Amino acid sequence: MDHRRPGPLVTVPSTALFTDQYELTMLRAALRAGTAHRRSVFEVFTRRLPEGRRYGVVAGTGRVLDAVTNFRFEPEMLDFLDRNEVVDGPTLDWLADYRFRGTVRGYPEGEVYFPGSPILQVEGTFAECVVLETVVLSILNHDSAVAAAASRMAVAAADRPLMEMGARRTHELSAVAAARAAYVGGFSTTSNLAAGYRYGIPTVGTSAHAFTLLHDTERHAFTAQVDSLGRGTTLLVDTYDVAEAVRTAVEVAGPELGAVRIDSGDLLMVAHQVRRQLDELGAQETRIVVTSDLDEYAIASLAAAPVDAYGVGTQLVTGSGHPTCSMVYKLVARAEGEGPDAPMRPVAKKSLGGKLSVAGVKWAARPTDPEGYAEAEVIGTGEVPAELADRRLGVELVRNGEPVGRESLDAARERHVRARAGLPLSATQLSRGEPVLPTRYLTPTA
Amino acid sequence: MDHRRPGPLVTVPSTALFTDQYELTMLRAALRAGTAHRRSVFEVFTRRLPEGRRYGVVAGTGRVLDAVTNFRFEPEMLDFLDRNEVVDGPTLDWLADYRFRGTVRGYPEGEVYFPGSPILQVEGTFAECVVLETVVLSILNHDSAVAAAASRMAVAAADRPLMEMGARRTHELSAVAAARAAYVGGFSTTSNLAAGYRYGIPTVGTSAHAFTLLHDTERHAFTAQVDSLGRGTTLLVDTYDVAEAVRTAVEVAGPELGAVRIDSGDLLMVAHQVRRQLDELGAQETRIVVTSDLDEYAIASLAAAPVDAYGVGTQLVTGSGHPTCSMVYKLVARAEGEGPDAPMRPVAKKSLGGKLSVAGVKWAARPTDPEGYAEAEVIGTGEVPAELADRRLGVELVRNGEPVGRESLDAARERHVRARAGLPLSATQLSRGEPVLPTRYLTPTA
Repeated sequence: MDHRRPGPLVTVPSTALFTDQYELTMLRAALRAGTAHRRSVFEVFTRRLPEGRRYGVVAGTGRVLDAVTNFRFEPEMLDFLDRNEVVDGPTLDWLADYRFRGTVRGYPEGEVYFPGSPILQVEGTFAECVVLETVVLSILNHDSAVAAAASRMAVAAADRPLMEMGARRTHELSAVAAARAAYVGGFSTTSNLAAGYRYGIPTVGTSAHAFTLLHDTERHAFTAQVDSLGRGTTLLVDTYDVAEAVRTAVEVAGPELGAVRIDSGDLLMVAHQVRRQLDELGAQETRIVVTSDLDEYAIASLAAAPVDAYGVGTQLVTGSGHPTCSMVYKLVARAEGEGPDAPMRPVAKKSLGGKLSVAGVKWAARPTDPEGYAEAEVIGTGEVPAELADRRLGVELVRNGEPVGRESLDAARERHVRARAGLPLSATQLSRGEPVLPTRYLTPTA
Repeated sequence: MDHRRPGPLVTVPSTALFTDQYELTMLRAALRAGTAHRRSVFEVFTRRLPEGRRYGVVAGTGRVLDAVTNFRFEPEMLDFLDRNEVVDGPTLDWLADYRFRGTVRGYPEGEVYFPGSPILQVEGTFAECVVLETVVLSILNHDSAVAAAASRMAVAAADRPLMEMGARRTHELSAVAAARAAYVGGFSTTSNLAAGYRYGIPTVGTSAHAFTLLHDTERHAFTAQVDSLGRGTTLLVDTYDVAEAVRTAVEVAGPELGAVRIDSGDLLMVAHQVRRQLDELGAQETRIVVTSDLDEYAIASLAAAPVDAYGVGTQLVTGSGHPTCSMVYKLVARAEGEGPDAPMRPVAKKSLGGKLSVAGVKWAARPTDPEGYAEAEVIGTGEVPAELADRRLGVELVRNGEPVGRESLDAARERHVRARAGLPLSATQLSRGEPVLPTRYLTPTA
């Protein structure tokens, strides 16, 4: 990816209004009550994985760092909040100077997670942390859902490359984040030019049915494409009759034809027919690319077929049945008073029949069995037991408001491969099941 | 909404890279082949509704107009395309001057649609139309999916207001579009400040569990909130014990307390208990707001419960099981030659076993039965039969590159109410079923 300099595609001058109104009304009330500056820790975690999934994949961490850095209230935003009486004068004054000066720790991008894993921990005053809730969750819930689907597809595809092609099936900016998350989860390329521009992800794409239909004949279209894009291009062969198109394609491009793409029909059967035909025509090196509503199961079902690459759209960007994660952002500890040295107290919602949380700032560790496979997600409060000290999972991401956890997307992508390889082998079964690691809580003995 | 002046939250200097690479490589090859300037018509339609759904809802049309207007290639984007050899020199030159100068017709925002409905028709040269595919589909597929879910929820909620609260469950900019689409589909308000800022949608929100946990006691928290936000505020009563919280809430705010919010537990049972308790405490006017993973079925199940408003998040922004629509953007007609007067030819993909399309530029009309209910979605090519002339569905949206179809969100929202009311009554059944109108194709007799 080094040859592609990422550029700032979309100028988001501020992320400060990607915020649910209640965050600012809470701030307003807490400022007035004098409690807004109590030291606080919020944690991002999930109570469960999507049904049947074996592991989750953390993605979006790098985008969270950008969002926290860009969380500033511009004058026209303050004017909007004032005009609509969302906040009062003192709150406007406070927001005008807002800049996150706290600390963020968390699972690094690409790491796997389980129910209860403290994926992100945001520490600072209540005021400076509470306003980040929505944007942090938006990013992590969306990106992690896509990365989890990508990871399952990458397992199903084994060594065959996966191309992300889902932009048209999701919001135009979700699409850019989805391409990024898919790359973290194991995809190789994207059709999305904005994702190439912004994040340096390699882009691919050649032609659609419209190109064939524009021309007087299929041969005319193929000739036009090969003249312009070269013999290494990918010709789409299912606009009219596949066998005829393959014959024409090889006649036009010769056996150096890069690939043919099949976008409809019984992919398994058609791939075998096309491979046989290509081989008979002497185009043994011409690859076969398939696209058409693929998901991890369809990819797996093509494992024995002569397919060289998969293009995946809808099911990737919609998380293959789970378009969001259920991550929440909860206050788990706060100071008992206003001063910086006031003792911290663990807190949690306790209403019966509701959604329970575990109070206190957590650590997490992932011990391994003698063969080196992870055996549990151990989560605790208080001191980390000595035997788990070198199995801890969190890293520092923001220190005193300054991002310290930036890294390349390739680093996150490689981390994910390692993290998944460290799980018990059943992690990569596509069938529905329980989380592949149990979550074990260790709390200090009283 | 008039008191809220929408502002430009997110500066998207250009939408031109929300584009799949193949659009630009097709352009490159067509420019070289001399076919790029053939007059062409692309249509957006779906082959089916999501399984079990009775109707679709068009949303995002206004955003499409913005996207088409802002589709310009900035110098740094051209540099990116050049550096990565996506296009060649002549294509770069052509893109540098790009500006859509064609015509767009389509279903106006808020209208309902059915399989085959020509939701959008983009006419111009092949070159100027082909590059809009991805961004147009991204917007319509996302926004229409959310609007369809919103419409079903609005039916289930009947006269009770719906609040959109899903920002944290989707990409931060999807969230803004989702709040917009939800408003079109029948929601009243949003928690999303960016949606209020950008689109003038009324925003709501008061407090979360974190606010209660920040304070030394629940009474302390409620007092702080009422002191700052007034007695008309909504107090969240399920952090500890609901009955105790309701008692404290009324003690603190008096019977003028605006509302209480319940966010967990058995909402049906708890709503009845809370209503009884509020009435006994003399707070007959205090409303009950429920939130907690609601979808249209949960909303319907609370129809007989003493609930005054619903807050909906996850299931709304993820389209209640259908997070995207299956809209496609297909070339349906193109000129036989390069000149502006070359005759147009209907075209369609024809590969067997694949995804069939109907060739030709379509019109659509929705005739009604004697009682005034729609009886079919009639789609045809060629002349519109006289008896259908006043039942046509399309409107002009862009003329010679200039948007002419801009309207307020309220206009789209009101149109949706009318369009849904014009469907047979079974349209509003939540249970799975077939599209409530059959699609009938009328093609000219040969």
